[in-house]
Amino acid sequence: MTSRAVTPRVLEAPARAGKGVGVFPSATAMVWTGEGHAHEAVAVPGVRLSPGDVLVEIELATVCGSDVHTVLGHRSAPTPLILGHEQVGRVIALGQGGAKTTDGHRVSLGERIVWSVSVPCGRCVRCRRGLGQKCVNLQRYGHERMRRGWELSGGFATHAHVLAGTPMVAVPDDVPATVLAPASCATATVAAAIEAAAEITVLDGAVVVVTGAGMLGLTATAMATEAGAHVVVTDPVDERRETAFEFGAEAVADPRVAPDAPGGLATAITRAGGRGVACTVGLDMSGSPAAVRTLLSTVDVGGVIVLVRSLTSGADVPLDPDVLVRRLLTVRGVHDYAPRHLEQAARFLVEARSRYPFAEQVTRILPLADVDEALALAASGVGPRVAVSPRM
Amino acid sequence: MTSRAVTPRVLEAPARAGKGVGVFPSATAMVWTGEGHAHEAVAVPGVRLSPGDVLVEIELATVCGSDVHTVLGHRSAPTPLILGHEQVGRVIALGQGGAKTTDGHRVSLGERIVWSVSVPCGRCVRCRRGLGQKCVNLQRYGHERMRRGWELSGGFATHAHVLAGTPMVAVPDDVPATVLAPASCATATVAAAIEAAAEITVLDGAVVVVTGAGMLGLTATAMATEAGAHVVVTDPVDERRETAFEFGAEAVADPRVAPDAPGGLATAITRAGGRGVACTVGLDMSGSPAAVRTLLSTVDVGGVIVLVRSLTSGADVPLDPDVLVRRLLTVRGVHDYAPRHLEQAARFLVEARSRYPFAEQVTRILPLADVDEALALAASGVGPRVAVSPRM
Repeated sequence: MTSRAVTPRVLEAPARAGKGVGVFPSATAMVWTGEGHAHEAVAVPGVRLSPGDVLVEIELATVCGSDVHTVLGHRSAPTPLILGHEQVGRVIALGQGGAKTTDGHRVSLGERIVWSVSVPCGRCVRCRRGLGQKCVNLQRYGHERMRRGWELSGGFATHAHVLAGTPMVAVPDDVPATVLAPASCATATVAAAIEAAAEITVLDGAVVVVTGAGMLGLTATAMATEAGAHVVVTDPVDERRETAFEFGAEAVADPRVAPDAPGGLATAITRAGGRGVACTVGLDMSGSPAAVRTLLSTVDVGGVIVLVRSLTSGADVPLDPDVLVRRLLTVRGVHDYAPRHLEQAARFLVEARSRYPFAEQVTRILPLADVDEALALAASGVGPRVAVSPRM
Repeated sequence: MTSRAVTPRVLEAPARAGKGVGVFPSATAMVWTGEGHAHEAVAVPGVRLSPGDVLVEIELATVCGSDVHTVLGHRSAPTPLILGHEQVGRVIALGQGGAKTTDGHRVSLGERIVWSVSVPCGRCVRCRRGLGQKCVNLQRYGHERMRRGWELSGGFATHAHVLAGTPMVAVPDDVPATVLAPASCATATVAAAIEAAAEITVLDGAVVVVTGAGMLGLTATAMATEAGAHVVVTDPVDERRETAFEFGAEAVADPRVAPDAPGGLATAITRAGGRGVACTVGLDMSGSPAAVRTLLSTVDVGGVIVLVRSLTSGADVPLDPDVLVRRLLTVRGVHDYAPRHLEQAARFLVEARSRYPFAEQVTRILPLADVDEALALAASGVGPRVAVSPRM
């Protein structure tokens, strides 16, 4: 696949002009029409902003693993679709009445923001229970069929139409976009996972095992380290284990090695925690059934296992309730996150970026027009993240 | 099995007299020597109390399901053994320095107390983590081989030697022993389960499904009701479902009936919570794999499932991590409890006994000498609890 110029097809019936119209020279969205098809560049000549909406000029968008799974046909998705839900950009237009960030400050023109992957309705039974990510009327960036009135619904575009009610967080100008883009998916999800663990047991001083050293695993390693934990990372790929050390891991293990052998998990836990200190927190960031099984047999009495990924194989993990009861274990599933986790994610990236090489995890940046190549590179595993930039 | 007089065999080498000797006319323990053998009445002529120990005259002991499992050979146990760990009694001797209850008041002679099933060491890594019930040096009443120096280690005896460090709670004189005896196992375990659920989601106003309407399930029904929940109880036995209403259940379901049919679980949930209101808490008090599977498919987004019993069949329940992740479910195992749960259990029984028929759940009281018959009756399912009394 080679780079190609963006030759946008103009959307046949552009949104009507009116109050709160976002003005921009040429918005272009890369539209995915289904498995096996290359993205099409589609011009969106105008956006009608409803009260509370925000129009954002995207600086950079990173490719999440779920984007890759979608284009490979591993998960169903409505088409035509603008993929991408990890991005950062600048506000260039505001709907009537303006908008507010999660901490209550008014969003201003020119401000740099990240925003949630989910738009909760704020009114349904789940929103009222604080589970906006499971809102019964949920809309998700990068996941909805392109439609009249909400054309710019994904990150793989020059602009995004951020709907009223979307949690938004302002971010400083001096932080690289490569650091900030993953905030709205990988980082915020990990913040939710860390909170889910911390609600059950103390992280400070605990031995935490993180399975998987991709973007989620590396972020979890750094966040747990910042919380005072001794982190052990398992991953079958040598290079990924090496990177884990740069994110705070005190020891690493190869899941193919026997636990008690050098390079095995039990050995690594002893190295990180000291002799006789058990692991009390397991964070599965791999989606591997074997990793979940390992955590179920590794986490000690009173501990917690947090799962953030559906298993790639779709396989069941045989759960022996007797193990949960006798070891007082808690197993928690985390999917997406609440607005506070996006705030925590942005704050964490801003504060911790000097200590951990987040920027370097975006190993390739391609022009937006080359999103197909970016997805193929991401699928080939060139690194934790590949990005597309509308500015190249 | 017929009632028989207690003809105690005197323990060959009685504990030596000395400081802190418990004085009592004739302590008798019913000693179990293994599957297929009747209990033997053994006289214990003296008890040497170490500092902090307490000697208790037992009023009444109830038979827990685990006692039944032990004598039926379903679980291994060291012998000779004094079974029984649900009982109430009066303090008749104190070791040097006396003892304190969990709320810090000094235990006095003549005081009526209940005490924990577990004696934590208070010093090990697990005790320091607040997991005394999983102390690495754990001793448990009704579970330890009878030994020199701690002969009276179980509830099926006239007296109990309560070791220093055992959580103890004073109880009022005017509450029936039938209400109080289960505090140290069934009630405190349920208190721990209710706390485990309340740490994850709000119980007030929630629809809670309790699977199993034995002593644990009925207690959980009453406790969740007191916490403001709308409780639905499932049990395959008609009579047990009827009893659940007396403990606060707003609806009941027969697990053999299709969920949406009259008498099915979905119908019951709608009856208890109203149309469109989902169940967010599942408490398995049955130990049935089918019940755990039902809870996994019933509990809604963001909810919690608490397991307090090992599965009787020892069967695995296939756990689809995808379900946990996409529904943000938490599954927690609870085994035994912490001292605060015993306090909560005693307080709950004292306060709630006028509203729920706890006393009536002890359907038969037999003389201590007839403990074999009591165990056989309990195994036959005559009711939630059968008791033995040293006073008959």
